[in-house]
Amino acid sequence: MGKTEPAAKVWTAALVIIGDEILSGRTQDANLGYLAKWLNIQGIRLKEARVVEDDMQAIGDAVLACLDSYDYVFTTGGIGPTHDDITIDAVAKALGVDVVLHPDAVATLEKYYGVGMTDARLRMARVPAGAELVENPETGAPGIRIGRLFIMAGVPKITQGMLRGLDGKLQGGLPVLSRTIGAWTRESRVAELLARLQDAHEGVLVGSYPFWRDGRSGANFVLRSVDAEKLNAACEALKHGLDADGIPPHEGEI
Amino acid sequence: MGKTEPAAKVWTAALVIIGDEILSGRTQDANLGYLAKWLNIQGIRLKEARVVEDDMQAIGDAVLACLDSYDYVFTTGGIGPTHDDITIDAVAKALGVDVVLHPDAVATLEKYYGVGMTDARLRMARVPAGAELVENPETGAPGIRIGRLFIMAGVPKITQGMLRGLDGKLQGGLPVLSRTIGAWTRESRVAELLARLQDAHEGVLVGSYPFWRDGRSGANFVLRSVDAEKLNAACEALKHGLDADGIPPHEGEI
Repeated sequence: MGKTEPAAKVWTAALVIIGDEILSGRTQDANLGYLAKWLNIQGIRLKEARVVEDDMQAIGDAVLACLDSYDYVFTTGGIGPTHDDITIDAVAKALGVDVVLHPDAVATLEKYYGVGMTDARLRMARVPAGAELVENPETGAPGIRIGRLFIMAGVPKITQGMLRGLDGKLQGGLPVLSRTIGAWTRESRVAELLARLQDAHEGVLVGSYPFWRDGRSGANFVLRSVDAEKLNAACEALKHGLDADGIPPHEGEI
Repeated sequence: MGKTEPAAKVWTAALVIIGDEILSGRTQDANLGYLAKWLNIQGIRLKEARVVEDDMQAIGDAVLACLDSYDYVFTTGGIGPTHDDITIDAVAKALGVDVVLHPDAVATLEKYYGVGMTDARLRMARVPAGAELVENPETGAPGIRIGRLFIMAGVPKITQGMLRGLDGKLQGGLPVLSRTIGAWTRESRVAELLARLQDAHEGVLVGSYPFWRDGRSGANFVLRSVDAEKLNAACEALKHGLDADGIPPHEGEI
């Protein structure tokens, strides 16, 4: 083309994980990894995640800080029927809007519970004013969208359904492609090779992840780029470099 | 005693998890839960965690923000020998100090690698000026302490050894005790009971964690307090309340 193309916008997101049970070590978060991969398919990068307590101020501060810095913000947790589910209230307060009952959510709950409807169950129809529901094709429990902010469940199966309802609906850029080359080597032995590789291949990120297995040192080198050609060129260069150092490269993770 | 005792100081901590591999969904963090439980034994509460990219600014900003808000800050990840291991540099820059070689760490590495010592391997002896090493009784790889900040590995086995080296050395308060009562019920059916319980038992935190298993709804109610007597009173009240509603309580997690 003869001239430099303008850099494409990188669309970004953050995740706010809400829940004392994560911070006490009782429960292992299982949403971050799924969301990260789902976002990548949409062409959006997960740039940061925060885990905060079930506390109005902590939730509100984290959501506002992330909205300031990233294109999209997702929350997980704290949207059930019990007293410790305060995400809706915290977000509404942070955004300076009221909490209202969403008529579609009320209708869904009334259909589901019938005469068993209670105030506690009606809590699950509460949304920050101005929010819309995101259909959940898997479990029926809708996600909640307020502009660039998405409020999702803590239970992974429900969150995954909410994300399915958003498939292809968010503006994004190019997904990040990745290839992994493994090798049986201490990573300190190839650190200089990796540093040279990183310098020589703009637009490709080179990560090194060591492991010890069966008494042997190994490392997986993960190369990532939005450009398949650049990615493959860097991978070939890495394989040649490992070979030259007498370390047989392994295509894919060891 | 006839008068109110002053509230005991609650010692707090935050964790900064450093690594593109976590944010891309490639690797599941395995340090948060372990650190949370270890901290609790020391009488310190994990109040927040942040996951940030391998980026100088992102690491520095997160560390400084957490130092501002909490008594102790821990980082995991980014302290190996490769070019993507930038935690030491990022922390030093954020604190406004130089990066220096720690003589004890150099000696350990020289002993370990002998004539195989390289610049890349020497990188692992770099610390922010003023830092001290935290002995690791399990793997030998020391943690790094700068005042209230602790720099630890990404690899869980190494991090756990670094924490063992800190056992009982940090000032803390009372550990949080917890008891779990389970029940086969939708949590929406007991939401009002739980809200009344929470109101009536100051000093006890009541959390509700629903699940679905084999087509049945259940929930685990986790009660937490630093005061064993208050905790047990709240648990008894919960069990009576569940019984009164025709829901058999189950001692311990279902």
